[in-house]
Amino acid sequence: LRPQDVIRKKRDGLSLSREEIDFFIAGVTSGRIADYQVSALLMAIYLNGMNPDEQQALTEAMLNSGNILDFSDIPKPKADKHSTGGVGDKTSIIIAPLVAACDVSVPMISGRGLGHTGGTLDKLEAIPGYRVNLSLTEFKQVLTRVGYAMAGQTAEIAPADKKMYALRDATSTVEAIPLIVASIISKKGAAGLDAMIIDVKVGNGAFMREEPRAHALAHALVSTGNSCGIKTRALLTDMNQPLGGAVGNSLEVEECVLLLRGEANEAAQPVLDLSLELSAHMLMLANVDQTIEAARARLERVLRSGKALECLRSNIEAQGGEPRVCDDPGRFLPLVSETVKVESPRSGFITKVDTTEIGHAIAAIGGGRVRIEDTVDPTVGFTSELKLGDQVRARQTIGTVYCADASAAAEAARRIQAAYHIADEPAAQPLKLVKEIINE
Amino acid sequence: LRPQDVIRKKRDGLSLSREEIDFFIAGVTSGRIADYQVSALLMAIYLNGMNPDEQQALTEAMLNSGNILDFSDIPKPKADKHSTGGVGDKTSIIIAPLVAACDVSVPMISGRGLGHTGGTLDKLEAIPGYRVNLSLTEFKQVLTRVGYAMAGQTAEIAPADKKMYALRDATSTVEAIPLIVASIISKKGAAGLDAMIIDVKVGNGAFMREEPRAHALAHALVSTGNSCGIKTRALLTDMNQPLGGAVGNSLEVEECVLLLRGEANEAAQPVLDLSLELSAHMLMLANVDQTIEAARARLERVLRSGKALECLRSNIEAQGGEPRVCDDPGRFLPLVSETVKVESPRSGFITKVDTTEIGHAIAAIGGGRVRIEDTVDPTVGFTSELKLGDQVRARQTIGTVYCADASAAAEAARRIQAAYHIADEPAAQPLKLVKEIINE
Repeated sequence: LRPQDVIRKKRDGLSLSREEIDFFIAGVTSGRIADYQVSALLMAIYLNGMNPDEQQALTEAMLNSGNILDFSDIPKPKADKHSTGGVGDKTSIIIAPLVAACDVSVPMISGRGLGHTGGTLDKLEAIPGYRVNLSLTEFKQVLTRVGYAMAGQTAEIAPADKKMYALRDATSTVEAIPLIVASIISKKGAAGLDAMIIDVKVGNGAFMREEPRAHALAHALVSTGNSCGIKTRALLTDMNQPLGGAVGNSLEVEECVLLLRGEANEAAQPVLDLSLELSAHMLMLANVDQTIEAARARLERVLRSGKALECLRSNIEAQGGEPRVCDDPGRFLPLVSETVKVESPRSGFITKVDTTEIGHAIAAIGGGRVRIEDTVDPTVGFTSELKLGDQVRARQTIGTVYCADASAAAEAARRIQAAYHIADEPAAQPLKLVKEIINE
Repeated sequence: LRPQDVIRKKRDGLSLSREEIDFFIAGVTSGRIADYQVSALLMAIYLNGMNPDEQQALTEAMLNSGNILDFSDIPKPKADKHSTGGVGDKTSIIIAPLVAACDVSVPMISGRGLGHTGGTLDKLEAIPGYRVNLSLTEFKQVLTRVGYAMAGQTAEIAPADKKMYALRDATSTVEAIPLIVASIISKKGAAGLDAMIIDVKVGNGAFMREEPRAHALAHALVSTGNSCGIKTRALLTDMNQPLGGAVGNSLEVEECVLLLRGEANEAAQPVLDLSLELSAHMLMLANVDQTIEAARARLERVLRSGKALECLRSNIEAQGGEPRVCDDPGRFLPLVSETVKVESPRSGFITKVDTTEIGHAIAAIGGGRVRIEDTVDPTVGFTSELKLGDQVRARQTIGTVYCADASAAAEAARRIQAAYHIADEPAAQPLKLVKEIINE
């Protein structure tokens, strides 16, 4: 068997056998197969797809390319959430303490932001001192002590995925369903999960803009996850506007803390609604509750009692961060006072928000990564209290750009202003936050 | 502009602009674009194709990635031949001296064998002392003095093609028409040609097995060649059996010398027929003759007078080789006496020859390259005096394998025996050597 024979087969639209997939992924992991051969196969998979058997074999081969974490001595169900990525999507920071406060262990392996999307690790690093590069031993200690731990993919976890992901980014092969599924499930599976909820974003700020494709991705994730022994469910959720009122790392952490403290403004509410919904499904999948109502009620209790906030505080402390962020986020998070207002150019209704453009505008001025090697400025961001369908007057403030560099801020404000479409009449259909639940 | 943006566009089936193609090829040449990005684009081109404008832009960008040789002080038309490759295809070795003997300058940039196909450079190197790695200065000296020169692609000629070709071989993206066309025409165009004849092989020993695809390749080559200012014509010729009686580097050179000496057996005749036909078209394209009949007559004269043979001798001498090969090839070429006969397993007619399999069988025992980095044993080969349609008796000799390693020879003989299909009835249609002439 030679790498080019496997590439040729996929190029010609044929199905790869488990043996061929195992051979290729072993070669990726060992470095025996050259990067240029890997990227040729990635493009062939992107264009010719994979059937469910290939999907399963690819996922398992990537999962088994590294260590499977063993948390069997933690006497709790293990569950996690994954999001396909969007703008202002910060639910992990709320869900992890909420679910951990309900006695479910949450070993969360997260990622970084790229392009228009943010990443949980970047957000957490906005907390002074917070460390996401935990060793496996540290990760397990935090998980055992706090109930949840948040870290980046280590060299031990699905190394084949790590290599392939870097190549996918550089070769425009990110958005292929078989590759997305294998990447997500191989990482999550390596964390030894019992249950997993997947937030599949759909809309103009998501990787999947159209519902049929998002649905196909959700279905593939659920069926592959279940086949790998993880009870998996997916929610198709709206990403046609930033989730909540804040975009940008410090501002998003602030929004999460305020939500857990019950002090957030109304614009932040969708973040909490979605977090509670995803968490409730996690509790059901983890067999903590048998109905969604019971799960929601349990989550409301740990939220109102402050138990979830205390869980966040313990985690921050355990991972080296400044715990007083939980008391006064505006004081202990790195924020800037330099701001530029984004004004509405006319009167009317917000009928469309080009969400990807907002993500790019903030990334371009340092709030995210244009390239994988960029560093992120946690202070940069954008806030808005307005939503799709809201009425605005000419020159009314749509939102605020935060950035110490005034000319960069002005440039981002200009792009964001153009991303808001204002029309005389509101759009006919109000958007539902959760569009569909996919169980198989 | 970023490499991944160009890749994405082609991935999505869109047309690349000349600016995007120039950017990418400049990056390939400078090494600024990583190999894994190049191979992703190659696969996207393989699967999504290119329109004629993209084809032209790609070819010109690759052509201009290196030097264009200037032979304007040689007061002759410059013409060359290219073959898409087959088994036993040795016409270059006959055509170059034939055409040079007719006062056309032939600056021939050739390639090496790979997989089931042979390469002119490997064949020439069977001649003791023959050097194909000429500097540009040496190449021009030989060309001026002898009338033709044979060399490999130097670092100065179409370096982008050189890089891309190596990647294509390792990533199963060789057989894409836009890439084949750009590779051939960029190399030939860099040699400053006025005219070019292309031998597009079709059949089970060719890269293009089916006539429609071979026709599409021929058409793309002719139209791109003409657009690059080279008068180009293509012949679609049969590759459903080895061309001539010999396969293998020394044996093929021997066959060529014997043909030029008028001493070859009948099995070799198709090599001469095709060489004369291709040469006649070259003379017409180079404006030496106005009719194919006049061109053929001129070629017959230089063949019979021995002028073509003398031209070969001068070239061998000029390129450091043993010129007495022209007098007694059996004595001065490296040949082995160890042989294994291939016998017909039954009586009947030869209805099919799996030509690719013969090429692979000889390559596998050292007569060619299984991998690009392999070295070639010039003594290894196969000869046969039988053709498609011939009648054989059970246990009659079909041909002979030449190889110093007896067990390797036996293995090749076994494979070649299986490649000959013998049936009770002959196949209905006799094969035409030249199937079609493509002028545009």
